[in-house]
Amino acid sequence: MITIPVPLGARAYDVRIGGVSPDEAATWLVAAAGAPTGVAVLVDAQVGRVSPRVAPLVAALAARFPNVRRRDLPAGEACKTLAEIGRTTEWMAASGFDRGALVVAIGGGAVSDHAGFAAAIYLRGVPFAIFPTTLLAMVDASVGGKTGVDLGAGKNLVGAFHQPRAVIADLGFLATLPPRERTAGLAEVVKAGLIADLALFERLEEEAVSLSAPAEHRDGENATRLATIIAAAVKVKVDVVTADERESGRRAILNFGHTVGHALESESAYELLHGEAVSLGMVAALSLGVSRAVTPVAVRERARRLLAALGLPVDVERRLSPAVLERIDVDKKRRGESVRFVLVPTPGTAELTDIPLAEVRSLLARTGPAA
Amino acid sequence: MITIPVPLGARAYDVRIGGVSPDEAATWLVAAAGAPTGVAVLVDAQVGRVSPRVAPLVAALAARFPNVRRRDLPAGEACKTLAEIGRTTEWMAASGFDRGALVVAIGGGAVSDHAGFAAAIYLRGVPFAIFPTTLLAMVDASVGGKTGVDLGAGKNLVGAFHQPRAVIADLGFLATLPPRERTAGLAEVVKAGLIADLALFERLEEEAVSLSAPAEHRDGENATRLATIIAAAVKVKVDVVTADERESGRRAILNFGHTVGHALESESAYELLHGEAVSLGMVAALSLGVSRAVTPVAVRERARRLLAALGLPVDVERRLSPAVLERIDVDKKRRGESVRFVLVPTPGTAELTDIPLAEVRSLLARTGPAA
Repeated sequence: MITIPVPLGARAYDVRIGGVSPDEAATWLVAAAGAPTGVAVLVDAQVGRVSPRVAPLVAALAARFPNVRRRDLPAGEACKTLAEIGRTTEWMAASGFDRGALVVAIGGGAVSDHAGFAAAIYLRGVPFAIFPTTLLAMVDASVGGKTGVDLGAGKNLVGAFHQPRAVIADLGFLATLPPRERTAGLAEVVKAGLIADLALFERLEEEAVSLSAPAEHRDGENATRLATIIAAAVKVKVDVVTADERESGRRAILNFGHTVGHALESESAYELLHGEAVSLGMVAALSLGVSRAVTPVAVRERARRLLAALGLPVDVERRLSPAVLERIDVDKKRRGESVRFVLVPTPGTAELTDIPLAEVRSLLARTGPAA
Repeated sequence: MITIPVPLGARAYDVRIGGVSPDEAATWLVAAAGAPTGVAVLVDAQVGRVSPRVAPLVAALAARFPNVRRRDLPAGEACKTLAEIGRTTEWMAASGFDRGALVVAIGGGAVSDHAGFAAAIYLRGVPFAIFPTTLLAMVDASVGGKTGVDLGAGKNLVGAFHQPRAVIADLGFLATLPPRERTAGLAEVVKAGLIADLALFERLEEEAVSLSAPAEHRDGENATRLATIIAAAVKVKVDVVTADERESGRRAILNFGHTVGHALESESAYELLHGEAVSLGMVAALSLGVSRAVTPVAVRERARRLLAALGLPVDVERRLSPAVLERIDVDKKRRGESVRFVLVPTPGTAELTDIPLAEVRSLLARTGPAA
């Protein structure tokens, strides 16, 4: 069990990572959340169907808290709409939840984005806690306080900053995670290494083979090794976020790979998983760095090799359609007529650069494997 | 022109009250909002149709800011739905508004609640400013930072705290305000007097006849006298809100009359105007105070006389149906099994009391003109 404190003053909380029993989890939640008047448990319906860990966890919560109710959300990105937020908040009102209620998310990043946003706006704000069930959510959605849903015009275009009271990452949930989703989750771990942690990046290079192996070959793979890697990635995010809680500056380096990534994800109608899109977006951002003479070609190729070795897609060049470029226009990281990009000069370092929209289009259009 | 500063540290802003030309208004907005990359003007459609002041104001904004776009919202409470928030935010994305954009509300409290909430969640938060066009909005919606929309289960059940950058209350908008709405707006002024400003309460008693007269008889009524009364009510709210920005404690006295008021408003399917419902709710809260030996009968009758003299409804007894009592159950001011009420021992003072739900039902059921 690894505990990573997120030191945000009055909104400080802990991220716990490891094998966690339902009883331990519920006990920690009591310590973190005090005495809520009710608990709204929002569960990814798919996780609810396949994971044997959901029902015992909800039962453990019901044994300790009053008015524990469960609502299963449409699996994955489908829950990230204002209409679904309407259904959740109407259900909360009908269930009698008041300002003293606690929202608990059990699911991937989509569910915690949804649950956190519902908690942020229900009665103008009630607390929430996250049980991430995917590798991506453990690494990415558990820190930062970003919540929200999608619009037709793009991903995460409405939302709120709302910090959880606790994040409890039970690695047991990963047993029923589809291999493709597990692999996709590694993209954010690679990102953490690339922007801020050379040692993590090198460790991933060393362990790429075992990390990419099917679950049955990773048996003793040992929760400890995986927990260590997840914890390192979480730590990167914690360090950046606590230095800059409202994303006015440095925090933006966490968007490495996300500007193009979001556009690809959105244009694919979410057939690409978030981590897959970020993998492609990182290759695009590295190529932008190469074009601007910030990133050595060798660094881009090294990162590309690691991503490919982990089983992540890297063939971004053939995907940069005009429609994808168009989507970058409405991306929220655009400011006026330029787009803020994160460039990586060398693994473990990152810098922010505003690139005029016209130049982005032209550079991305020229991007190619040999550029 | 009266300027009331709202001293909220980094979120401080001014409320300006008086006759304001479009040019003055736009100039103030430049001073308050800096250099936005675009301005999303959200207008109450009815105000847009009847008031000659909207078009010149939008034109004055367009002369000073880039990408000024106007969207007319369904008039009144009809704009306070998550579906309408979805339409506004999709429109904002389609209009190319980025994080540097400013949202401007021109309308009553419903429009500023909608616009403030859209601003709070669009790209996780952009600034906004308010041009209140009703007396109620000038007095009530311009201070406090409460934004939000309704659910089927009740009013204002989802929302956010989001402070405006500026509030500019041009009394010229009141010329086209229907008399019933103008009268309703006086309820929040009476409330301010009752909970915190004896001098304001007495002034209202003295001026009740002229305040309730039709517009054509109030000619020289003079903006100054009205501005003074509005400013006094705004000042009460500012003092309470700045002492307690997140409504953890004392701020709740502003809910005087609102617990029963919201239930009545909701149960009437919003045929009752907010101010009318608050007038009725204040009489109910005063009667609760009488039942608990906190409020002298004479105080309740004095308040009732003032409200009636201003043309506000006071016959709450015949409206307290079981359905209305049921609605208090989901009201957000309920905590656990009790409801927080504001009681007024004497005009100009208020105290908070948690009353068990069962007692509320029994007291309200017994409430009558002779109680």
